[in-house]
Amino acid sequence: MRSKLLDRNGGVTYALVFDTGDEVISGLTTFAKEHRLEASDFTALGAFSSALLGFFEVKQKEYRKIPIEEQVEVLTLVGNITLDEGEPKIHAHVVLGCADGAARGGHLLEGYARPTLELILSESPVQLRRRYDAASGLALIRL
Amino acid sequence: MRSKLLDRNGGVTYALVFDTGDEVISGLTTFAKEHRLEASDFTALGAFSSALLGFFEVKQKEYRKIPIEEQVEVLTLVGNITLDEGEPKIHAHVVLGCADGAARGGHLLEGYARPTLELILSESPVQLRRRYDAASGLALIRL
Amino acid sequence: MRSKLLDRNGGVTYALVFDTGDEVISGLTTFAKEHRLEASDFTALGAFSSALLGFFEVKQKEYRKIPIEEQVEVLTLVGNITLDEGEPKIHAHVVLGCADGAARGGHLLEGYARPTLELILSESPVQLRRRYDAASGLALIRL
Repeated sequence: MRSKLLDRNGGVTYALVFDTGDEVISGLTTFAKEHRLEASDFTALGAFSSALLGFFEVKQKEYRKIPIEEQVEVLTLVGNITLDEGEPKIHAHVVLGCADGAARGGHLLEGYARPTLELILSESPVQLRRRYDAASGLALIRL
Repeated sequence: MRSKLLDRNGGVTYALVFDTGDEVISGLTTFAKEHRLEASDFTALGAFSSALLGFFEVKQKEYRKIPIEEQVEVLTLVGNITLDEGEPKIHAHVVLGCADGAARGGHLLEGYARPTLELILSESPVQLRRRYDAASGLALIRL
Repeated sequence: MRSKLLDRNGGVTYALVFDTGDEVISGLTTFAKEHRLEASDFTALGAFSSALLGFFEVKQKEYRKIPIEEQVEVLTLVGNITLDEGEPKIHAHVVLGCADGAARGGHLLEGYARPTLELILSESPVQLRRRYDAASGLALIRL
């Protein structure tokens, strides 16, 4: 385990609200570029009209795709924003609630808000960078 | 997507502990009134003896109710506190863990702590207000 | 419900990254001892190669163990670090995502990162202490 001090005073906090039809990963990426976010983390709740989840297959080194084609509650969306080759990279995992209360989830590839997704983001005054790791096939945070 | 700066120094943080029998939404609402919270977010874990969940039906514009009548772990409870017509409004989603490890969840309408629910709340020095949105039938955060 | 002010300026924030094979609860405990953490909370995402979950049985006053023996996404890991008889105590609940998108979860007893677990930890400048509660059989936070 490795660690890095991110902040001594709690950082800057933003509220972001996604409206019906807004795609969350692309919206967050645009926000991250505009605000030059280099080390942020976030938590959200709301609902999606549809989503595309991923499950990372460690042998194949790729995401198995899990389409969600129904209205679902976003029970928790947690993630971070780091730099991957100089560009902001969103890493987010989501837990979804179906109409009968069953929970599903995975790595969030795409999620379409309906009617809303409410997200709280904390920005830290440092950089967190990812670097490609050949063993896993993923860009991992290097502290 | 819309955004608002909530804080430049991380805000004020509280720990709240709910004991056996305490209902979380009403307890949080009382706390919010007493502390005049106008823009807060929280995360919690613990366990419930029972709960009432909701799944928002976008066509009917109302919550389908999902009663949970068994002891469950509160795996994650995330939410925010905003102002709705001047009164604090709790918006919270929960993921519950059953005795066999299955996960369920939804919008939290009621949750009864047993033996404990541990909640960390961050207060921001701004206001976040909700306003009724006729299209969805919900009070959404307006930034 | 009881409450305690933890911080007026958002606290100190750390990023922790667990690599393949790192066990999260023992790694966090070591970090807490080294940094003398006395009131912290955290949120994480990533993946486990295996885990051991618990479901607290209120009558028996002990955890039923739920072994997870497959690669799973860590959809959300939320928890806190407090003092229990002077030693840092990790309390964490996890939601896991299986290959088909099904979600499971419980109290985290052990979790083995693969390929990574990314954790953001906020430290507060106060103490939160646990004390054994005979009624529940658990050490609960006393505010």
